[in-house]
Amino acid sequence: MNDNDTSPDFLKAEAAALLGRVRATQPHVHCITNSVAQTFTANVLLALGVEPSMTIAPDEIGAFVSASDATLINLGTLDADRRQAALIAAETANGLGRPFVLDPVFAHKSPSRKQLGEMILALEPTAMRGNAEEISGIQANASKTVLAETGITDIVRFGGRTVRLQNGDPMMAKTTAVGCALGGVIAAFLAVGDDRFIAVTAALMSFGVAGQIAAGKAKGPGSFVPTFLDALYQLTPADVEKLGRIL
Amino acid sequence: MNDNDTSPDFLKAEAAALLGRVRATQPHVHCITNSVAQTFTANVLLALGVEPSMTIAPDEIGAFVSASDATLINLGTLDADRRQAALIAAETANGLGRPFVLDPVFAHKSPSRKQLGEMILALEPTAMRGNAEEISGIQANASKTVLAETGITDIVRFGGRTVRLQNGDPMMAKTTAVGCALGGVIAAFLAVGDDRFIAVTAALMSFGVAGQIAAGKAKGPGSFVPTFLDALYQLTPADVEKLGRIL
Amino acid sequence: MNDNDTSPDFLKAEAAALLGRVRATQPHVHCITNSVAQTFTANVLLALGVEPSMTIAPDEIGAFVSASDATLINLGTLDADRRQAALIAAETANGLGRPFVLDPVFAHKSPSRKQLGEMILALEPTAMRGNAEEISGIQANASKTVLAETGITDIVRFGGRTVRLQNGDPMMAKTTAVGCALGGVIAAFLAVGDDRFIAVTAALMSFGVAGQIAAGKAKGPGSFVPTFLDALYQLTPADVEKLGRIL
Repeated sequence: MNDNDTSPDFLKAEAAALLGRVRATQPHVHCITNSVAQTFTANVLLALGVEPSMTIAPDEIGAFVSASDATLINLGTLDADRRQAALIAAETANGLGRPFVLDPVFAHKSPSRKQLGEMILALEPTAMRGNAEEISGIQANASKTVLAETGITDIVRFGGRTVRLQNGDPMMAKTTAVGCALGGVIAAFLAVGDDRFIAVTAALMSFGVAGQIAAGKAKGPGSFVPTFLDALYQLTPADVEKLGRIL
Repeated sequence: MNDNDTSPDFLKAEAAALLGRVRATQPHVHCITNSVAQTFTANVLLALGVEPSMTIAPDEIGAFVSASDATLINLGTLDADRRQAALIAAETANGLGRPFVLDPVFAHKSPSRKQLGEMILALEPTAMRGNAEEISGIQANASKTVLAETGITDIVRFGGRTVRLQNGDPMMAKTTAVGCALGGVIAAFLAVGDDRFIAVTAALMSFGVAGQIAAGKAKGPGSFVPTFLDALYQLTPADVEKLGRIL
Repeated sequence: MNDNDTSPDFLKAEAAALLGRVRATQPHVHCITNSVAQTFTANVLLALGVEPSMTIAPDEIGAFVSASDATLINLGTLDADRRQAALIAAETANGLGRPFVLDPVFAHKSPSRKQLGEMILALEPTAMRGNAEEISGIQANASKTVLAETGITDIVRFGGRTVRLQNGDPMMAKTTAVGCALGGVIAAFLAVGDDRFIAVTAALMSFGVAGQIAAGKAKGPGSFVPTFLDALYQLTPADVEKLGRIL
């Protein structure tokens, strides 16, 4: 196994193995996320066998992050509590050497989010997820933080490695909080993976494959939600290896 | 076309045309809404092709309202942040001459909501939506603000025009946040319509027709949620023209 | 009828009768609950015919609790507003002699929640619901407060009476907020029941029977949510009497 191996077969096998490890290990992921995404994110994590906790209260956040295997920091609906909690969480996770993921929602549209996002980036999150505008609108260092740019094609970059994935379905963009929930899934895979580039790739592939399976059964964005959660719950390593698409 | 034309055929044709324009234009609607309704409201708007944003943080709200085509201000779960944000949003939208909708949830039960509701009404919202108790419990001027009183029969009043609609299904009252989400839909139709009386009528009719279609397929209030979102996603102008009911 | 009658047949008949009374009476239940559970809890209550309200704003909470037949105080996502509102709600309900339920979510993991939980317990909630860790991690008096410890087997204790129930399905633990919503259902049954031990038992039995029915139809935790709400909506006293399981 070579650190720079980004061949499709290698990555698909690794992704399948990591999905199995998430289910076996049942990591605890703490999520500071926006109020629109909280319920769906918790349900996505539970469907994968992950134990979520969701408080954003600044005076509790240190204890919850310390008790977690990985943390998500999503900057949506950024009120005063979330702002304060986000920074405490990043400092706590960084201090413990514990994985944490930044999702700089709308940082290109809100100066105060961009500023907070850059303060958190200075604490070297394990990974950052966003769309092209969000990723390009904020200064990140791809040698310290895995960059996961999601869209029709997902691009994962870290150090010298880059991979492009084409999983998922356009229906995923018709439902709120899907991208935000992916941030929690990335955190869960980072909690069980040794190589952060592979862990992020595995999270995107597993999530996208479940989306493909669900989109084939749903009648619209409403039925997509329960169908997608059922698909995540039933997703097997073999599904990921068979349906993963790397360009 | 006559400004005072409230004939059923005219209004149904206009409603159908406006639904088409919402889908073609994909307006951006910012929603300050209660914490119970946020996820469902975002999903309702996405199902119609509208781009939602949902922050209630006072220091961000001006930027988000300015970047939106219309705004919803719903007074449910009225905490200190929402209270402050609601007033900034109303002032911003009023200053820009941009449509905004007030939903004075439970204003008849809470003196502090009623007071804030009346401060916002003084800024002349484009429309106000509520049930009979909410509408009658707060002083509004039907020559400045379209009044949409919803119930088994919906009544829309503006200046000298009045229309009564009978769309929807009792199942819509068995699911939380349905009325709140309608406020976001009214904002979306106001964003694309030139005549505010017609735009509000079109929003109520489209929403209600989708409710009728979904209620015919759902087994209870649980399956109504995904079925209704699917129905909104699939709703065509022809459906609205065919199934709209004006008394 | 004997106060100490805990025979299965007696309790099942009482539970069935109380479910009927909830539907006939349509009590108003105010819920201070965590941000993850708000929407699902409101939908669970509506499916049972209960009228929910959900604000957590400290300056409104007294008015809403006073206008309610029973109140839920859930300590999840315990931010500053929820903390303040929880205490006002407990004092208001206690002062009015109105039923209220404490759910000390994660009190064993968070010192500040435990402290607040014990302040609320001193105000003698009608009932407390939690899992074994939560119940054992906080000092409660089973002669003042009905203790409902939920898990694979549910245990209800009050004064000298104890009952063990085995309703529900493991799928209920794969979906977020199910336990939190049960707290609201307990409040609704307390609003209509004269004997608090029987009311809590009836709430657990009704909720669990609906879970069993739904789990038999759902394909996973995603479809479980709408299926469970439909099952609650359709649940009859006869279902409870037939499917209730008391050890």
